[in-house]
Amino acid sequence: MSEASWDRSQCSVAGTLAVVGEKWSLLVLREASHGVRRFADIQRYTGAPKAVLTDRLATLVEHGILRRVPYQAEGERQRHEYRLTAKGLDLVPTLVALMEWGDKYLADGEVPPMALEHRSCGAPVHLELRCDEGHELASAREIHAVPKGAALSPR
Amino acid sequence: MSEASWDRSQCSVAGTLAVVGEKWSLLVLREASHGVRRFADIQRYTGAPKAVLTDRLATLVEHGILRRVPYQAEGERQRHEYRLTAKGLDLVPTLVALMEWGDKYLADGEVPPMALEHRSCGAPVHLELRCDEGHELASAREIHAVPKGAALSPR
Repeated sequence: MSEASWDRSQCSVAGTLAVVGEKWSLLVLREASHGVRRFADIQRYTGAPKAVLTDRLATLVEHGILRRVPYQAEGERQRHEYRLTAKGLDLVPTLVALMEWGDKYLADGEVPPMALEHRSCGAPVHLELRCDEGHELASAREIHAVPKGAALSPR
Repeated sequence: MSEASWDRSQCSVAGTLAVVGEKWSLLVLREASHGVRRFADIQRYTGAPKAVLTDRLATLVEHGILRRVPYQAEGERQRHEYRLTAKGLDLVPTLVALMEWGDKYLADGEVPPMALEHRSCGAPVHLELRCDEGHELASAREIHAVPKGAALSPR
């Protein structure tokens, strides 16, 4: 079977991109993953135009990736902050994948600006492609993509 | 030190998004990773408007993520196809991360349309967050992000 013959309308890459596949959304998630929760801070650190940020935050809340939590600083009006849900936390590997690629190809020999450490032991954290037999894949070329479901129906 | 205090202008997430952080670019890379190489096929499978696709392919070639290779079918004029470079292949973990999230949250209980297998043993392939001590992280909450470089300068 050709690699081409599967149903793109069910593709999880496309589906995920439809929710978060946009620069500002992913930068908002970067900030959320670093514990930046308030509109003004997210705006400052991402540089997103306010109207765009309002829209992206609403979309991320609508999809259950961020949750909106009220808070009130003393003497100020009530505001909301944005926190990653478990569903949002599961997007962190995507951010790590983007970061690792950028560290490798865009850093120009400089030290990457952010290191990820394992909280409990302090060792650097990285992403691995691994199979259920426990083999680490040295390259993405070791992946065989197998279309399933709809594309396998008799035609 | 607050999680907020690091230099976003050096961020590898933002840098990578500036190159590939756009729906069509990532869908083109999805196709390339499945061995779809010709303009007409990429156009058909991604649904990208032709002008947009032309632009995105040029950007991906310019950044050395795809390379443009001439080919000539018998009796036809010479055309070009697009192949992933090693730099492009290193974006596959990003695609896998997007796919895993979509499989988990968007599949609605259906079988995901694509399975990834380890070519040599046939076992399913997945991404793992792991530290250099060999510990697998059960959750992204076990990551401690440490700003380095510019943001560490005395202020």
